[in-house]
Amino acid sequence: MNSKEQFINKSIEAKEVYLPHLSADPVIFGFDQNELKVLLIKMNYRKKWFLPGGFIDKNLDLDDAIKKILEERAGLTDIFVEEFGVFGKINRSESYFEDFDETLFQKQRFITIGYYALYNPEKIHPIPDEFTETCEWFYLSQLNEIDLGMDHREIIEKALLTLREKISIKPIGYNLLPEKFTLTELQKLYEAILGKELNRGNFYRKIKNLGILNKLDEQRRGGAHKAPDLYSFDEEKYTAALKNGLNSW
Amino acid sequence: MNSKEQFINKSIEAKEVYLPHLSADPVIFGFDQNELKVLLIKMNYRKKWFLPGGFIDKNLDLDDAIKKILEERAGLTDIFVEEFGVFGKINRSESYFEDFDETLFQKQRFITIGYYALYNPEKIHPIPDEFTETCEWFYLSQLNEIDLGMDHREIIEKALLTLREKISIKPIGYNLLPEKFTLTELQKLYEAILGKELNRGNFYRKIKNLGILNKLDEQRRGGAHKAPDLYSFDEEKYTAALKNGLNSW
Repeated sequence: MNSKEQFINKSIEAKEVYLPHLSADPVIFGFDQNELKVLLIKMNYRKKWFLPGGFIDKNLDLDDAIKKILEERAGLTDIFVEEFGVFGKINRSESYFEDFDETLFQKQRFITIGYYALYNPEKIHPIPDEFTETCEWFYLSQLNEIDLGMDHREIIEKALLTLREKISIKPIGYNLLPEKFTLTELQKLYEAILGKELNRGNFYRKIKNLGILNKLDEQRRGGAHKAPDLYSFDEEKYTAALKNGLNSW
Repeated sequence: MNSKEQFINKSIEAKEVYLPHLSADPVIFGFDQNELKVLLIKMNYRKKWFLPGGFIDKNLDLDDAIKKILEERAGLTDIFVEEFGVFGKINRSESYFEDFDETLFQKQRFITIGYYALYNPEKIHPIPDEFTETCEWFYLSQLNEIDLGMDHREIIEKALLTLREKISIKPIGYNLLPEKFTLTELQKLYEAILGKELNRGNFYRKIKNLGILNKLDEQRRGGAHKAPDLYSFDEEKYTAALKNGLNSW
């Protein structure tokens, strides 16, 4: 079965299982080599890259339908995502399916809900589904070089803007960094998200003031410089800050 | 035509005009008497209160469909809303339509997109549509006393939580306060949104530091105390802060 026949085959089942007109697209961010990455899938059909999105199961609460999408499209379980935007331009997915007739489930108008999550790429092992050639992480700086389908570039950009807003009100890093990290590593993460360099002294002072870090009695060995202290997140205080926000008022 | 017949009549047209399964619910906040208000409509059918929501026009971009809902349901034009959440529990609207058969457009499963906006209640003049007995503002503290339909209480609560987050990263007040206001009035707005009292000295210092206020050469006359200075928002700086955020990193 070629990739076009696969879509037609899926269409018949999809009409039974999924709500029409509504899809979801998860933007999974990772952090590696001081840069943000995003998880993409390469579809068999037309070899374009997409977010690992899918359709909404008729018989599931929305939250559970999203979990099912992540599991079915990329084999990801226990991923906690947060909604950040809804994308509903009338022609947003038109051109990808232009070679199919109007009866194809996938060809109808879809309004898609964007979700984002932050995970350590080393801890996520995506598995492509039958429609997908491969799942891969791309650095944000590489996205200009690939053929991203539909409006998925716009969706990733909105997710990044949301992340930049969230970094002022929520702690970030728990799922992205190794268990033990240096303040420099944490600063690099903040810089990657904000897209700008931060003053080291200010950053250290502010991040320590949040009260979410534990200084460990250990140093990072092996560098040319004085061995820097290692830190971990204080799980209880981190969780409380997630819930209550880092509200400055 | 009674209110039940109205729904059946609407159903026939709705199948032609709107996407199935998808609706939108705007939470319009106002500020008055030092308290937040929200705009609700009372449906003719069952006399329950709802947000002024509606369905998504098949032939419009999502953003334009939302504008159409606000105009049709409540006569509101030029309202700028922002998306804050999607509500998709499988049985969220089941009970309201239990006396209709399954062919009713309105009875199908709907996933609804929440939008919020902040406006001065004096400047908004809602007009009820044919399905609506009345449009009214309610103080948040009054919501426990009324019969709110479906999951609209949960939607309002999520909108308020979003507003509390946004107040740390975006300036707030432009559409909510009169053109000229005292710092006390602005503080009361922040306190109403945050649901807690703020220290006056800290608030004055922080709000002035944002650089979005112009101190006017005028005072508020008529009180028992020393006439307080009046302020207005510096439109240019306010707009820039809206765009760039009040990022603290």
